[in-house]
Amino acid sequence: MLFHVRMDVAVPRDLDPEERATLLANEKARALELQRTGTWVHLWRVVGQYSNVSIFDVESSDELHEILWNLPLFPFMTVAVTPLTEHPSALSANP
Amino acid sequence: MLFHVRMDVAVPRDLDPEERATLLANEKARALELQRTGTWVHLWRVVGQYSNVSIFDVESSDELHEILWNLPLFPFMTVAVTPLTEHPSALSANP
Amino acid sequence: MLFHVRMDVAVPRDLDPEERATLLANEKARALELQRTGTWVHLWRVVGQYSNVSIFDVESSDELHEILWNLPLFPFMTVAVTPLTEHPSALSANP
Amino acid sequence: MLFHVRMDVAVPRDLDPEERATLLANEKARALELQRTGTWVHLWRVVGQYSNVSIFDVESSDELHEILWNLPLFPFMTVAVTPLTEHPSALSANP
Amino acid sequence: MLFHVRMDVAVPRDLDPEERATLLANEKARALELQRTGTWVHLWRVVGQYSNVSIFDVESSDELHEILWNLPLFPFMTVAVTPLTEHPSALSANP
Amino acid sequence: MLFHVRMDVAVPRDLDPEERATLLANEKARALELQRTGTWVHLWRVVGQYSNVSIFDVESSDELHEILWNLPLFPFMTVAVTPLTEHPSALSANP
Amino acid sequence: MLFHVRMDVAVPRDLDPEERATLLANEKARALELQRTGTWVHLWRVVGQYSNVSIFDVESSDELHEILWNLPLFPFMTVAVTPLTEHPSALSANP
Amino acid sequence: MLFHVRMDVAVPRDLDPEERATLLANEKARALELQRTGTWVHLWRVVGQYSNVSIFDVESSDELHEILWNLPLFPFMTVAVTPLTEHPSALSANP
Amino acid sequence: MLFHVRMDVAVPRDLDPEERATLLANEKARALELQRTGTWVHLWRVVGQYSNVSIFDVESSDELHEILWNLPLFPFMTVAVTPLTEHPSALSANP
Amino acid sequence: MLFHVRMDVAVPRDLDPEERATLLANEKARALELQRTGTWVHLWRVVGQYSNVSIFDVESSDELHEILWNLPLFPFMTVAVTPLTEHPSALSANP
Repeated sequence: MLFHVRMDVAVPRDLDPEERATLLANEKARALELQRTGTWVHLWRVVGQYSNVSIFDVESSDELHEILWNLPLFPFMTVAVTPLTEHPSALSANP
Repeated sequence: MLFHVRMDVAVPRDLDPEERATLLANEKARALELQRTGTWVHLWRVVGQYSNVSIFDVESSDELHEILWNLPLFPFMTVAVTPLTEHPSALSANP
Repeated sequence: MLFHVRMDVAVPRDLDPEERATLLANEKARALELQRTGTWVHLWRVVGQYSNVSIFDVESSDELHEILWNLPLFPFMTVAVTPLTEHPSALSANP
Repeated sequence: MLFHVRMDVAVPRDLDPEERATLLANEKARALELQRTGTWVHLWRVVGQYSNVSIFDVESSDELHEILWNLPLFPFMTVAVTPLTEHPSALSANP
Repeated sequence: MLFHVRMDVAVPRDLDPEERATLLANEKARALELQRTGTWVHLWRVVGQYSNVSIFDVESSDELHEILWNLPLFPFMTVAVTPLTEHPSALSANP
Repeated sequence: MLFHVRMDVAVPRDLDPEERATLLANEKARALELQRTGTWVHLWRVVGQYSNVSIFDVESSDELHEILWNLPLFPFMTVAVTPLTEHPSALSANP
Repeated sequence: MLFHVRMDVAVPRDLDPEERATLLANEKARALELQRTGTWVHLWRVVGQYSNVSIFDVESSDELHEILWNLPLFPFMTVAVTPLTEHPSALSANP
Repeated sequence: MLFHVRMDVAVPRDLDPEERATLLANEKARALELQRTGTWVHLWRVVGQYSNVSIFDVESSDELHEILWNLPLFPFMTVAVTPLTEHPSALSANP
Repeated sequence: MLFHVRMDVAVPRDLDPEERATLLANEKARALELQRTGTWVHLWRVVGQYSNVSIFDVESSDELHEILWNLPLFPFMTVAVTPLTEHPSALSANP
Repeated sequence: MLFHVRMDVAVPRDLDPEERATLLANEKARALELQRTGTWVHLWRVVGQYSNVSIFDVESSDELHEILWNLPLFPFMTVAVTPLTEHPSALSANP
């Protein structure tokens, strides 16, 4: 089940630099892990913004929430979730 | 070069039914053609809305405009274009 | 899997009265049917507006789209979908 | 009398951790208490957000205000209240 | 129980003049009737706009919906409902 | 001359508690005084929000500004002013 | 008493040309009349838009409403009214 | 004197095709003429939209209004005007 | 050349009181100076808000920017600039 | 390939003055460098705002992101990117 997620990141300026570095490293590690398991299907950077557009493939919206809520950068993100479905003009629907 | 495009469709109620059918068939044919050539990389339906979220892979923004402007349904669409780039935490950037 | 759906209805003034009556009757029949099967879990009217707030319990977001897209009044609705999950302070999570 | 309430929570980063823990524990206790008395009828988490969608069943809007205003997390919430009524297509209206 | 209601009116230009006159007369009669019974407590015109700000005193939000939904001009109104309660600094709370 | 005023209050979290208490007491005293003189005609709390909806009856918009600008909580308020006039369907216009 | 008024005009395309011409002539005559009596103090065109920004000097907001409501183009205008008062740094306040 | 102008075009679907063709030809001729005289300095199409972003170099804002108001497509445009000035980091300011 | 300027002021709460007093005095002195030279043609306070609506008469938009950018309160203002021109129904255009 | 970029700058008040000066000097140096290489084609100040409107000519949207992301002031900017293409009525398209 696919979800479109946009994340806008705003890390506070006064965050301890070491804490910040750890946070970013953990976020990256988690993102890579979820991409390798096929859950975080796409991850793109929005040009000129500290934001990403992502596609997640999950078993349920509960699973998606679990993932997003536990992202290391979650407390510093604004997240918008849009459920997707197969488009009738998509190749997959017109084999 | 990747672009994120959202299209919200609003076909007028008083459009001639035959014209409408032709329009939709042409739009579908064009979408399939562009998917087969690898230009229209992803095409998803937004749940509960006459809208899609798409990813295009083009040589230039000129090419993208050419494609969008000539879609059969273009006159009845609201289109939002967002340029994308590789995310530093994407798998492709961390082989 | 739960989804929160808000539907704002705007039936065109010039719709043929009979067509309108049929449409509304079909919409009501479909709403009752989906409530009886436990899919359309809640359906409330928003005070002072031709709108409803609904909760759907579906197997997937694909199923939700199928349902919404085929509602008789869908062409005259603005629909907003919000995925829900169990709240950690809900009774169900604290038996 | 039913009200739809959405609460978006933003606990300040610099809140004393102990105060924060107490606050959250009190909020949870209060939410459970109000659910057990049948006042806080539904409480759902919005996927990917520190927000909930709730349904309250109260005697009056005065009672609703009293409840919301005294929630432990109220000072850190943005609250939107929408009055609901029975939908003519709801099962309850079509026994 | 008090509710703040704002109504923005937009009667279509092509409405039959007689139908329009009847509609406006009925709306006025109904407004006067509800004011006399003490339900429509206040009714003010917004300066420079075809809009009013009103205060209703009703037994329940169900009653409010019943009233608003059946106003002759309802199909041509945008309605916003805000529940009110006694303010702790109001005279009534500080006798 | 009537004006509709909505005030949304946001007292900073780090305000000295004593200063805060004095401020709130002064605001309340001022509100009561203006209600007793018939200037602050109505004062209602918006359900679930640190906000009020008020009706002022003043000699001029200058007088209204003088009052609002000097409210003890003014520095912590967002204020929206809407001029009102008699509605042609109001009881007062149809004696 | 001064009010700032912005009027955005949208005359329907299908208005009878003669009716349109009469309407515009009447609007202009009325605007000139109100400027000569000192009520419509300033009238400026917004660059690139079918809109004006105006300052009215009236005895009361009731008078302002009477004027705006009866403008020939009123049915085709979106009107925004903002009450003004003397600025403490204005020349008039610092003779 | 430079102005940034964005024009969003929405030609009505029911415009007579010949009238439409004439309108578009006139608009193009006028745009070319103003570019040749150095008044319409830049004219770009926004990708995926029936919109342009333009830079005008005029003697005064009066001249700009005269130009925009008389564009053949003006009745079907939404126009946003933003005055520009030399940037302190521009090459022209740092010869 | 006339420009409509709205300035919304938000002086930070923690600004040193003396610095604040100096700033406000300088702003007032500058406003009076520019009014006396005929550049700052009108300056009104918006009722109930720490905002003003102003009309400037300048030689160019460059001059306007120079003035606004150097206002003592500029760092604490949100500024909106709208170019104006003579209205065809203004007295000045109909002598 | 052309992109329209608007940057709104908000340097925090509490930034160390020396750090601020360095930052601004570096930003200016970088802007000049990119203008000299023909990448930052236009750079204008928006009148009355700490904002610029810019046109970039880049090989790809990846290159644009690289540039924007590494601007010294990037952490204090809100950036909006709009892809442009040749307008059919531009001189360049009508030689």
